[in-house]
Amino acid sequence: MIEDKNQARTPLSELGEFGLIDHLTKQFEIKHTSTVKSIGDDAAVLEFSNKQIVVTTDMLVEGVHFDLSYVPLKHLGYKSVIVNLSDVYAMNAQATQVTVSIAVSNRFPLEALEALYEGVALASKIYNIDVVGGDTTSSTSGLLISVTAIGEVNPEDAVYRTGAKPNDLLVVTGDLGGAYMGLQVLEREKEVFKVNPNNQPDLDAYTYIMERQLKPEARKDIVKLLKDLDVKPTSMIDVSDGLSSEILHICKASKVGCDLYEDKLPLDPQVISTCEEFNIDSTTVVLNGGEDYELLMTISQKDFPKIKANPNLTVIGYITDESVGANLVTRGDTKIPLQAQGWKNFNS
Amino acid sequence: MIEDKNQARTPLSELGEFGLIDHLTKQFEIKHTSTVKSIGDDAAVLEFSNKQIVVTTDMLVEGVHFDLSYVPLKHLGYKSVIVNLSDVYAMNAQATQVTVSIAVSNRFPLEALEALYEGVALASKIYNIDVVGGDTTSSTSGLLISVTAIGEVNPEDAVYRTGAKPNDLLVVTGDLGGAYMGLQVLEREKEVFKVNPNNQPDLDAYTYIMERQLKPEARKDIVKLLKDLDVKPTSMIDVSDGLSSEILHICKASKVGCDLYEDKLPLDPQVISTCEEFNIDSTTVVLNGGEDYELLMTISQKDFPKIKANPNLTVIGYITDESVGANLVTRGDTKIPLQAQGWKNFNS
Repeated sequence: MIEDKNQARTPLSELGEFGLIDHLTKQFEIKHTSTVKSIGDDAAVLEFSNKQIVVTTDMLVEGVHFDLSYVPLKHLGYKSVIVNLSDVYAMNAQATQVTVSIAVSNRFPLEALEALYEGVALASKIYNIDVVGGDTTSSTSGLLISVTAIGEVNPEDAVYRTGAKPNDLLVVTGDLGGAYMGLQVLEREKEVFKVNPNNQPDLDAYTYIMERQLKPEARKDIVKLLKDLDVKPTSMIDVSDGLSSEILHICKASKVGCDLYEDKLPLDPQVISTCEEFNIDSTTVVLNGGEDYELLMTISQKDFPKIKANPNLTVIGYITDESVGANLVTRGDTKIPLQAQGWKNFNS
Repeated sequence: MIEDKNQARTPLSELGEFGLIDHLTKQFEIKHTSTVKSIGDDAAVLEFSNKQIVVTTDMLVEGVHFDLSYVPLKHLGYKSVIVNLSDVYAMNAQATQVTVSIAVSNRFPLEALEALYEGVALASKIYNIDVVGGDTTSSTSGLLISVTAIGEVNPEDAVYRTGAKPNDLLVVTGDLGGAYMGLQVLEREKEVFKVNPNNQPDLDAYTYIMERQLKPEARKDIVKLLKDLDVKPTSMIDVSDGLSSEILHICKASKVGCDLYEDKLPLDPQVISTCEEFNIDSTTVVLNGGEDYELLMTISQKDFPKIKANPNLTVIGYITDESVGANLVTRGDTKIPLQAQGWKNFNS
């Protein structure tokens, strides 16, 4: 888990900026006809006929969003693309291109950037994305990755945060809380490693939640599923900051309230057992943990028959009038207002 | 020149991430019909009918690209947009949208980010750009700004680096070397300030070159001028890294050589006098200085009558066969091969 620091080390200064960009980007093939011109000019040139395009951008900062003592660089490159694709899919759009910019201090050798770009290349292959540009520059300390993702959508298919209506169902994909609990395990093992570097941790009980943290996936499959089911959500958002925060975004943008049912929250057994081990309330983790990159959507009641049997989609509540507010209905059947940064307030 | 550090200080933690984004972006108005959805969803949504779109991205890093001891934050916000617009204009395209992402340590108060965004807002107003998204995150040290610019162009109008042909004229806009010499003056004054903070420098002799460094402009006007003159360059690039590097990019991409004439290089009188004062060769400054954000283009000989009287355009050489290489023809009429990182090699 802990990276081997004694690998081949080629100083970045050996290549120079242009040599570095050439070296790192030569592996990228063009897959989309919408990519007219990729890396190698002042700007990429794209052409989308009769489509709207979506644009989103996110940064990952060392020491804030990741800790290189347990995040392999290849995983980090992969994740930096995924978190942006997730925003594209949350618009019900298809991701088509990304730009990847990196600021890096000279403590990183070329091989480290190669590993990072391997992850970028893998994500772009699996998700069928063209890497069309970027910037590589030095930093005075640490590593920062800034990705912009571009996608296309038929104008009638785009889904915003603004369309939720009272009585719509609140639906989430997959399960929640895994990425946060994976992080807790990694943080604990880091402390153990500091005390005893020869300790070989047995992490078999945490493989799923560690993968949720280190190698998250974006729900491209859900965009296809919704199309196949002939369901257009009334609103959608990706779950990057914790369920509570995302629900509040939809409620604010759509001017509605909601009732979220605690007993409906989808939890993987590993999340439940690890929460017990760490003595953390799993509902708190789901509401405030973040980084699950599932999709949260609202769906009209009339579409319920189309989704009810689907194992990818869980109904976790419904939309109410704005005056009622956004609430969690607990297992004990009491209502608690949802809070965006509710960790401290909610932890009992 | 040196920033007053004793202004009002509102800690960023008072607002939280979403409050901060709302606060900083509420001033941005939408100007383009191509902006369907701006800030406030998972992604911006854009629509360009019958146009190609261009996408470019650049990062500015504290301690690498700027020094806050003499760069006002408002200027920095302005410049972070300009350097990206310059890449859009270098495609012969119109810039329409930007996303602006900022990583910032908590040593910066809210008022600092407000100043930065004032500069972003000013650039977007002057250049008629919509700010459609971004990301605001903390950093462990320093300030980093990552901007992605989007533009539109008729497919037949896009100009790449690849189209230069032997006998084409090598043409540059404006004058060169100012931004670099402005930086030299600012660096010198910083040292003077360290020794005697009460010293009031007389900078009247350097106003133009300091402005070239602190508040550069992008040549949107040239895209319009070329259209008015009915001239489509055979290739184009913006001069961000120094003329030598940009010429070599065009020669490499177009598989051509060139002869660049030292005595044709456009120099402002302040550049000449400041180079004399600092005992630096002005040709070296032009070739390797960078940050001028002028446009370098190649133009077919048949278009020469259309451009020859124009004060914005200077013919500085011509394209040759690839086998001849890219050369500087000195005032003494000797040929020296151009080098991308020629500062050390070329300085005599």
